[in-house]
Amino acid sequence: MPKNIGVFDSGVGGLTVVKELMKLLPRETIIYFGDTARVPYGNKSAATVTKYSLQNARFLLQQDIKLLVVACNTASALSLTALQESFPALPIIGVIEPGVNAALKATKSKKVGVAGTLATISSQAYNRLLTARAPDVQVYGQACPLFVPLVEEGWVHKKVTSLIAAEYFSGMKRLGIDTLILGCTHYPLLKRIIGQVMGKKVKLVDSAQEAALEVQQILENKEMAVTKGIGNCLFYVSDIPDKFIIVGQQLLGEKIQQATQIDIEKY
Amino acid sequence: MPKNIGVFDSGVGGLTVVKELMKLLPRETIIYFGDTARVPYGNKSAATVTKYSLQNARFLLQQDIKLLVVACNTASALSLTALQESFPALPIIGVIEPGVNAALKATKSKKVGVAGTLATISSQAYNRLLTARAPDVQVYGQACPLFVPLVEEGWVHKKVTSLIAAEYFSGMKRLGIDTLILGCTHYPLLKRIIGQVMGKKVKLVDSAQEAALEVQQILENKEMAVTKGIGNCLFYVSDIPDKFIIVGQQLLGEKIQQATQIDIEKY
Repeated sequence: MPKNIGVFDSGVGGLTVVKELMKLLPRETIIYFGDTARVPYGNKSAATVTKYSLQNARFLLQQDIKLLVVACNTASALSLTALQESFPALPIIGVIEPGVNAALKATKSKKVGVAGTLATISSQAYNRLLTARAPDVQVYGQACPLFVPLVEEGWVHKKVTSLIAAEYFSGMKRLGIDTLILGCTHYPLLKRIIGQVMGKKVKLVDSAQEAALEVQQILENKEMAVTKGIGNCLFYVSDIPDKFIIVGQQLLGEKIQQATQIDIEKY
Repeated sequence: MPKNIGVFDSGVGGLTVVKELMKLLPRETIIYFGDTARVPYGNKSAATVTKYSLQNARFLLQQDIKLLVVACNTASALSLTALQESFPALPIIGVIEPGVNAALKATKSKKVGVAGTLATISSQAYNRLLTARAPDVQVYGQACPLFVPLVEEGWVHKKVTSLIAAEYFSGMKRLGIDTLILGCTHYPLLKRIIGQVMGKKVKLVDSAQEAALEVQQILENKEMAVTKGIGNCLFYVSDIPDKFIIVGQQLLGEKIQQATQIDIEKY
């Protein structure tokens, strides 16, 4: 029986999900793949993101995985169905459904904002799922394509970042949302600035923790959880690992000893 | 004898070079490849950018090209030597040398600034070539990783873009440069804002025009120029062509009738 948990993201951002998984499931072995050569996915077409997602999944399936987490909002929005159809025997968890569930629990005004990449917002994936679950909910989606480069530039406390956030969020502030889904794994790093712009009354939903909880439930329901021993995490990337290790340690809050470069185009 | 001019870029930016080529060489047929599925190159490693550049060149060589223009500063900085070694019979022009030549003609203070992606600036390619040609020149390189996403967001006249440019260029303003190389094909679209930040005394060098002039010279010297008939331009991309066609027309200043998607990973 396969024994590992596979996780992929377009780059380093999915490590926020790994961090939550390690907290909840410390005995599991996690195999992480970050597609650092082809990052970002957020400005690419559904067909291309799905092709990349299938390659990533095929690589992870060779690493003896029992469950796959798509820790990338764009790939979850555009490719989750294709992945589930291609690998019907494998439980596959995206980050959108857990975020939607958490947002619906949190909202009282029934006005929910979603911030994400251009591809995620254009896909309407959050929109569709939120209104399918709660037809009375109003959804305000906002693409924030500058947030990922701002985070990667390390400008998480700068005045210009505040100005850009204020510009992006002026529409949903006027609508009076009370819950904002941070629909991209990079965005939690801007939590402080986004919180200042939105005000204290708006709850920010970070889907990493919600996704990890869902993984825990599935493993327990299917009696597939590891119950003994010490967990581990192995990292694979498609570009040279240097920058991934440096930035990744900040996101993970733990030292990354090694990340192995693979040729993802072969899969 | 091969008869076309091949041009590649990581995406749509290289069309600024095509525009200049079409002006200077209206009888030539240009084959353009934009690697829109794997864009951007600017935050990737030299090994990955070189792998992608070689694939792009192999595809273009199958399109009957007599000369190759690397219309991407990052690929020119990281991969030009590898390309020239792999295809020794093919004349290959990057955008760095033409930009350097123009800057050295323009500067009087012998203080030259270079703005580019993280990969271009880290490679020190401009730096090395400028000081090799003119050992008395002082070079100030500045990575501007937010400029490409700002251009792609269409924020070319916004206040925040000015603030970001002011932050990036404060160091080279203090140094007193009189010439600034726009070392990325996207940056000419920010010419107005960069000009306002730097002041009228600083000359902005746009390498697209310089590269096109070099192509013209080579074709004439080698007697390879087309002397009869009407030129043409064929466009190939690695992601779906929709966005390329829309943004491309703005950069090219002409209608793009069609762009064909290819699977670049096969080359």
